[in-house]
Amino acid sequence: MSKEDIYRKQNMGNASGIGSRCGLILVDFVNGFVDETQFGGPHIVEAVKATVPLLAAFRKAQLPVVHTRVVFADDDANQNVFCLKVPPLLELTEHAHASQIVPELTPIKGEWVLRKTSASAFFSTGLSEWLRLRGVDTAVVVGCTTSGCIRATVVDAMQFNFRTVVIEDCVGDRAIEPHDANLFDMRQKYADVMPRDTFLQLLMKV
Amino acid sequence: MSKEDIYRKQNMGNASGIGSRCGLILVDFVNGFVDETQFGGPHIVEAVKATVPLLAAFRKAQLPVVHTRVVFADDDANQNVFCLKVPPLLELTEHAHASQIVPELTPIKGEWVLRKTSASAFFSTGLSEWLRLRGVDTAVVVGCTTSGCIRATVVDAMQFNFRTVVIEDCVGDRAIEPHDANLFDMRQKYADVMPRDTFLQLLMKV
Amino acid sequence: MSKEDIYRKQNMGNASGIGSRCGLILVDFVNGFVDETQFGGPHIVEAVKATVPLLAAFRKAQLPVVHTRVVFADDDANQNVFCLKVPPLLELTEHAHASQIVPELTPIKGEWVLRKTSASAFFSTGLSEWLRLRGVDTAVVVGCTTSGCIRATVVDAMQFNFRTVVIEDCVGDRAIEPHDANLFDMRQKYADVMPRDTFLQLLMKV
Amino acid sequence: MSKEDIYRKQNMGNASGIGSRCGLILVDFVNGFVDETQFGGPHIVEAVKATVPLLAAFRKAQLPVVHTRVVFADDDANQNVFCLKVPPLLELTEHAHASQIVPELTPIKGEWVLRKTSASAFFSTGLSEWLRLRGVDTAVVVGCTTSGCIRATVVDAMQFNFRTVVIEDCVGDRAIEPHDANLFDMRQKYADVMPRDTFLQLLMKV
Repeated sequence: MSKEDIYRKQNMGNASGIGSRCGLILVDFVNGFVDETQFGGPHIVEAVKATVPLLAAFRKAQLPVVHTRVVFADDDANQNVFCLKVPPLLELTEHAHASQIVPELTPIKGEWVLRKTSASAFFSTGLSEWLRLRGVDTAVVVGCTTSGCIRATVVDAMQFNFRTVVIEDCVGDRAIEPHDANLFDMRQKYADVMPRDTFLQLLMKV
Repeated sequence: MSKEDIYRKQNMGNASGIGSRCGLILVDFVNGFVDETQFGGPHIVEAVKATVPLLAAFRKAQLPVVHTRVVFADDDANQNVFCLKVPPLLELTEHAHASQIVPELTPIKGEWVLRKTSASAFFSTGLSEWLRLRGVDTAVVVGCTTSGCIRATVVDAMQFNFRTVVIEDCVGDRAIEPHDANLFDMRQKYADVMPRDTFLQLLMKV
Repeated sequence: MSKEDIYRKQNMGNASGIGSRCGLILVDFVNGFVDETQFGGPHIVEAVKATVPLLAAFRKAQLPVVHTRVVFADDDANQNVFCLKVPPLLELTEHAHASQIVPELTPIKGEWVLRKTSASAFFSTGLSEWLRLRGVDTAVVVGCTTSGCIRATVVDAMQFNFRTVVIEDCVGDRAIEPHDANLFDMRQKYADVMPRDTFLQLLMKV
Repeated sequence: MSKEDIYRKQNMGNASGIGSRCGLILVDFVNGFVDETQFGGPHIVEAVKATVPLLAAFRKAQLPVVHTRVVFADDDANQNVFCLKVPPLLELTEHAHASQIVPELTPIKGEWVLRKTSASAFFSTGLSEWLRLRGVDTAVVVGCTTSGCIRATVVDAMQFNFRTVVIEDCVGDRAIEPHDANLFDMRQKYADVMPRDTFLQLLMKV
């Protein structure tokens, strides 16, 4: 049996749907992740481009938007186990070029720029509470990398009881197999995965 | 470039190592997950068998052991978004056969049987605090499924700053590709992945 | 200057108000806390009585209701630091008389009976996520004790970004000074504190 | 019966003790909290002075030290319910004079300066994980205010299963009655409360 058949037979992969108010989470769209010599990969540049009209739509609809950056203390005072596995993370400090949001997606007033030191944008950051106060029940997740911080953020979004949507052309990775494998997992168990334009049509109906 | 080469070039996949005290987390080794007509797959039965000597070693060394079960309220009072994606989860109630720990791994006095309703064994369960009080700095994770609750638990274990080990022959899944893909991701970013017997040799040296 | 004047001068004690949907949290209204030979005090019996019509109003309005109980494992497997300070907590096990909800406030189908082992009803319990999925933005807190689990729950409710209301005649304590002192603190910084009948009038307008 | 007698009769107020490794948490010792025209009170200045030798002892023993500051985004993008109750909090931004650590306690390299927007230093900040990785099992809490961020931090420290110590001459408040009332509550249920010099003698024996 194919993996798709196994999951269907066990009654997984149902839609969780879109609720009454969406919030956009842009995960780690920073210079270091569009640079293949650092943390990047070719799909991430494409994902940035595809995200520009999506961000514009959220701004036009005046829906909550949060941007995440990985930021460690300049003196390594808050290093963690993640840095043991991936030492270059410690170079992502407040003023490092690599940790600045890419120019195409520069935050505007009122959009929260969240600093994080873990994979999930929700882990020990207050993101869940921030979204709650702004009435968000549906988390729309884009950014990079699909197999890293996107997957971790999406699992948490679902666990925090947000209906969760992954925009598949607005997420990217450094290698294609993990990208595809993680889209499969997320679709089966945690999120609704769809192209940007499909989502934009749904957003207009909310 | 292969995905392995890309990750090596970006300096990922380093070891986080084993600390001074290990704790064993057995994730969802319950009847419903060794049954292919419910949530199971062929690898999970093998993973149960391989775990028997591992559990014995932890008991002999008097190290902390926790077993997790998925348990929802009988009247669905605590249903969540996870159940929208995977409706059969709601059948895992306190007294359902499917939600009982498999007989080969029956908990003994002093081992904590943790009820959960999410993917990660750490999410809103107090597991992190339980391990802390017992002096654990290294989380050893086994159970099922590799691409589901194991992956979610491992990412959280790392985020909670435990050095994390996945015993690759003691985790199983309902399909083989997601199993392999998730072992790859976890090895690169979150955990040390190794066979049971390699771990047992390391454990004797701690 | 009186303490009231100091807080007013520093611009504290403002109202956070009531939002669009209230949820009721009944904290530890169990037999052991209405018994003065165990954890109780005279005000707690009165608080139970005053809560009966409040619970009826929430049921009539079909608003979410959660009851909390302190429940430790029968074999002490999940004991914690709280038990070092207050050893009798370990006697509150699943089937102990002392840990059953008082008869006047017996839960009905669909109301979540949350087990906890800490002071705050939110700590590692999933309460925040449960309320979110049910659309609650305002936490209404009653139960016991005012200076213990009520205070801890109220601080967390506010931290999780719920507008928070304490019904002053529906909370009780084992001694009167801590009760009064904690109502003062909560009113100044964390919650709107009001009598039951004032709240019931506001509830009808939401 | 006095409140002390009631608590003794119910077997509360036991010691949780000091474990194998202490960490120091300095809560909100910033300019705005030693200024009575902002958030301060007379006891806080005294608490700062008393803390200087305590901090020196932790540095000499090379034990982990964390300083907290309340810091909101310059454009109010992350305002929360706490700001509804206490609006002046929003003035505590990254570069505001009021939110800088007091000169007497200036952090040194390796000490983590934690930004927070809630009462508890543990709430959505990663403090628990930071202390875990550094081997801390005992949280020593000083700062201000006793009835606000100290109380919230101490309850959380206990909930996160740290043995918790409050140094009573190193915490301060804007009014004396809430200070005293909260020391009483913390001593009964959450922490060991002791003078600085008593603690320093114990620290030498660890």
